[in-house]
Amino acid sequence: MAAETSGAIEQEEQIVTPWEVAAEKGGKIDYDKLIDKFGCQRLDQSLIDRVARLTGRPPHVFLRRGVFFAHRDFNDVLDAYERGEKFYLYTGRGPSSEALHLGHLVPFMFTKYLQDAFKVPLVIQLTDDEKCMWKNLSVEESQRLARENAKDIIACGFDVSRTFIFSDFDYVGGSFYKNMVRIAKCVTYNKVVGIFGFSGEDHIGKVSFPPVQAAPSFPSSFPHLFSGKDSLRCLIPCAIDQDPYFRMTRDVAPRLGYHKPALIESSFFPALQGETGKMSASDPNSAIYVTDSAKEIKNKINRYAFSGGQDSIENHRKLGANLEVDIPVKYLGFFLEDDDELEHIRTEYGSGRMLTGEVKKRLTEVLTELVERHRRARAAVTDEV
Amino acid sequence: MAAETSGAIEQEEQIVTPWEVAAEKGGKIDYDKLIDKFGCQRLDQSLIDRVARLTGRPPHVFLRRGVFFAHRDFNDVLDAYERGEKFYLYTGRGPSSEALHLGHLVPFMFTKYLQDAFKVPLVIQLTDDEKCMWKNLSVEESQRLARENAKDIIACGFDVSRTFIFSDFDYVGGSFYKNMVRIAKCVTYNKVVGIFGFSGEDHIGKVSFPPVQAAPSFPSSFPHLFSGKDSLRCLIPCAIDQDPYFRMTRDVAPRLGYHKPALIESSFFPALQGETGKMSASDPNSAIYVTDSAKEIKNKINRYAFSGGQDSIENHRKLGANLEVDIPVKYLGFFLEDDDELEHIRTEYGSGRMLTGEVKKRLTEVLTELVERHRRARAAVTDEV
Repeated sequence: MAAETSGAIEQEEQIVTPWEVAAEKGGKIDYDKLIDKFGCQRLDQSLIDRVARLTGRPPHVFLRRGVFFAHRDFNDVLDAYERGEKFYLYTGRGPSSEALHLGHLVPFMFTKYLQDAFKVPLVIQLTDDEKCMWKNLSVEESQRLARENAKDIIACGFDVSRTFIFSDFDYVGGSFYKNMVRIAKCVTYNKVVGIFGFSGEDHIGKVSFPPVQAAPSFPSSFPHLFSGKDSLRCLIPCAIDQDPYFRMTRDVAPRLGYHKPALIESSFFPALQGETGKMSASDPNSAIYVTDSAKEIKNKINRYAFSGGQDSIENHRKLGANLEVDIPVKYLGFFLEDDDELEHIRTEYGSGRMLTGEVKKRLTEVLTELVERHRRARAAVTDEV
Repeated sequence: MAAETSGAIEQEEQIVTPWEVAAEKGGKIDYDKLIDKFGCQRLDQSLIDRVARLTGRPPHVFLRRGVFFAHRDFNDVLDAYERGEKFYLYTGRGPSSEALHLGHLVPFMFTKYLQDAFKVPLVIQLTDDEKCMWKNLSVEESQRLARENAKDIIACGFDVSRTFIFSDFDYVGGSFYKNMVRIAKCVTYNKVVGIFGFSGEDHIGKVSFPPVQAAPSFPSSFPHLFSGKDSLRCLIPCAIDQDPYFRMTRDVAPRLGYHKPALIESSFFPALQGETGKMSASDPNSAIYVTDSAKEIKNKINRYAFSGGQDSIENHRKLGANLEVDIPVKYLGFFLEDDDELEHIRTEYGSGRMLTGEVKKRLTEVLTELVERHRRARAAVTDEV
């Protein structure tokens, strides 16, 4: 698992790969185009309603608000679930930084909801090998980051008895390695070039990696969890930039006698500077980190969160805020649970009755509480990894 | 480790890769050309004398008779040994067939001699993953062949307390996998295409494999054997077709802080049909297997071993045998220990005083005894693998 950055740089055509996300010419990512290009399906209201019905609980805010917006064969997983078959969840993270930002939490918060709602096992892959190969990190540093990130992931509140978190450097071998080899046998070099765009000057570690990310899609990679359950289905919640890995995996699956893994895919979490800005690991002011203090959060929101409000109070009262580009409203869309309150803010702010400062104040409260809660949970994580 | 076949098919230029060995236009492999092309060094008499002096025993028959004829940095290993530094040996086999033939035994017989003479540890890699990817073998079948082959290898008489035999499917992981990743980071796709000649239609398993064969060259791949001994040198006895793997490994070694592995390389073991014939797994009559009965050995030698003798007794008495193409004499060169007897046979046969039948009879005795001894040793191997 790799790119979690969002935003865009000047670009002729939008690019979405696991390593690069860039919108067309300073605009926003066109998710409809992406669905067409990748060939996945839109997650429509009837599917969301079905999730609510099957789980007996309201759909997660990320479903209600279209954060998770695309899928592959999610309906098949639900069909099987309705017939009484279980499935397992697989998600992951490429541990490239010490601290996670809010965008990193999105797939994990959603995966926790799915685990709770469906009561299913979950495997979480930390691709320290990938980060060692793509970033210029040593094996040891990648492993250290994986351990640190694992604590943040555990802090998201997964059901420990149903969750297996592993780092590739620790876990690759045995049944997992055998599946890597089986997968690699089914994929030509030309194929990975077509999917990932590698060049001849890329090192062979990159070429070798896709089977590592594919292997957890097959239950036999985890004999201690799924022994004898080769027909168990796999559902992968992830950001849509990871789709190329699983297109490849889905091609291979039937040849190895497995179900194709199903996917449920999210849009990208925007940078504070707006959806046309790039959330960059080298610019700490482009994102809010789970390690930020209340003061830093307040400061970042007030100084950097791109506002759709007008340039003077008079204009704002008259024209209202442009909600399409307003980051505080977008962030509230991710993290403010209360639908009514969100709708109220959108109406008041959009009509100009509410000012940017008021919206930013509410966002600061929401994020401070979220980060504070995360920090307490992380502190409670001991070395039981 | 892969190709152990020898011989030649019609070919514009000689080809020697781990997967294909073919001489130029029906001729013999030109080993001088190979040394030039690969850039390794000829193993000269002074180096052989030095081995004898350092080990206090006569050089192995494979050294005396030029079976192992090329090397890379073998003198550096001897320098270090003379200073009191140890080294370790690394060899291997790609388990593609149930039973080994005599050519397969050559590197192991020589490695056993080196282990005994220098009293050093040895790691033996069974590349079941490679065979699974190159041949169309399942993971399970490759592993089964690896286990069977391991018994034949153990039967060569290695010092069990100093020898670690492993299959990749069992052992890849942990420190070994970390070294695979470190190595892969240092090698571009263009580089492996240059070395191994892969095409875009080859599967990515092939592209991923070279680091697997490279990793045992570094002591940190075996923490249970060489913990804290990162400066330990590695000496690899192998057939010269494996040189490409270790050219790559030697390029990478200094970037990872290791000594370049040293090599000591053998020529190919000829097929019964002669050095221009191909020793083929699909033709059991092209080789003598360790599972052949005394009767089969006698029969194969009499019927198939290419003779340099003349077409009539009269001509033979007059012209003598052509020792350059005579397979019985070549095989005796590998397996008849007694230098005086071999010289006697060469003189008598070459001058026409000895007939082909007599030489074949002596070879049959030698090989029957060798195979019988191997069979007894193999039967004594229990499941302590």
